[in-house]
Amino acid sequence: MNLYIALVHYPVVNRRGDLIASAITNLDLHDLARAACTYGVPACYIVTPLTDQRALAQTLIRHWTERVGKAIHPDRELALRRLQVVDSIQDAIETIEAQHGAPPLLWATTAKQSPNALSHQEARQLLRASDRPCLLLLGTAWGLADSVMATVDGVLQSVDGVNGYNHLSVRCAAAILMDRLLGRE
Amino acid sequence: MNLYIALVHYPVVNRRGDLIASAITNLDLHDLARAACTYGVPACYIVTPLTDQRALAQTLIRHWTERVGKAIHPDRELALRRLQVVDSIQDAIETIEAQHGAPPLLWATTAKQSPNALSHQEARQLLRASDRPCLLLLGTAWGLADSVMATVDGVLQSVDGVNGYNHLSVRCAAAILMDRLLGRE
Repeated sequence: MNLYIALVHYPVVNRRGDLIASAITNLDLHDLARAACTYGVPACYIVTPLTDQRALAQTLIRHWTERVGKAIHPDRELALRRLQVVDSIQDAIETIEAQHGAPPLLWATTAKQSPNALSHQEARQLLRASDRPCLLLLGTAWGLADSVMATVDGVLQSVDGVNGYNHLSVRCAAAILMDRLLGRE
Repeated sequence: MNLYIALVHYPVVNRRGDLIASAITNLDLHDLARAACTYGVPACYIVTPLTDQRALAQTLIRHWTERVGKAIHPDRELALRRLQVVDSIQDAIETIEAQHGAPPLLWATTAKQSPNALSHQEARQLLRASDRPCLLLLGTAWGLADSVMATVDGVLQSVDGVNGYNHLSVRCAAAILMDRLLGRE
């Protein structure tokens, strides 16, 4: 069971469906890292091709993983050192492949209904049954671009609630997915 | 099944264990409201005795529930109108009692291990079996003060991951708890 996560800031779409690079949100980095640490996800890739946004993310991460941040708040350091800033999804794939000797299975998440979506129970069983690494792509803004959805090996069922409304933040959706895919029975 | 949620900014403790009133975090309000809407929680109480913090929370909520915020982003309005700003836990209790004719059962959450904690499966079954309202208290900062823990009817088991680390953000812990207590089977 080797699930990796990528928080994708490009290519994603805005509310009009235009292709954009979204801005990094400080609390996304913290929440994702803390949930990853809780559920044993070895690395989360923060994907953005924008040089200044990568520098910003690195500064945020260093604040908590070095010197005073690390000393005051060691639990946060344990979590945030799992974050790796990369400039593309391909970069994340190659990093995982270099470690495992095989490229990861690619799964996308979406808040939309999609035909042939993997249920979370099926995804959990697949993770348990295989040694192959898997990279779960989480889209920011209004979600992953179609160009990404066209290249993945599978799409996870959306996190539905009880009444059709499913506009969770990417932070909360990621936490629920980690709990469903990796949490103890 | 009438689960209400309160995000408590006072009385909570800081990392040294001192009693404090914590500051409101904008994204807590959004994430909690969006998860509440997804899982059918009728109201979330934002608890703070600080007048300027209550005014700030009201301004944030109004931005999304009135005029341009509502027009541009109707999904967000549906969620944020579930938020109610109150000055104490007692205020939230009285508001629920006024609606239901009975005071809510009070449950606390904690990241600590506690003896006699209710498992999430037990809590789920209790919610299904009873018409009595229930108010789930979520502590900000380093958690609910002992004075609160001493008055509740039950304490929910902490959201544990797989390896002992369980420092989730309150946003993510709340989302996972709503999924476990209220999500579809």
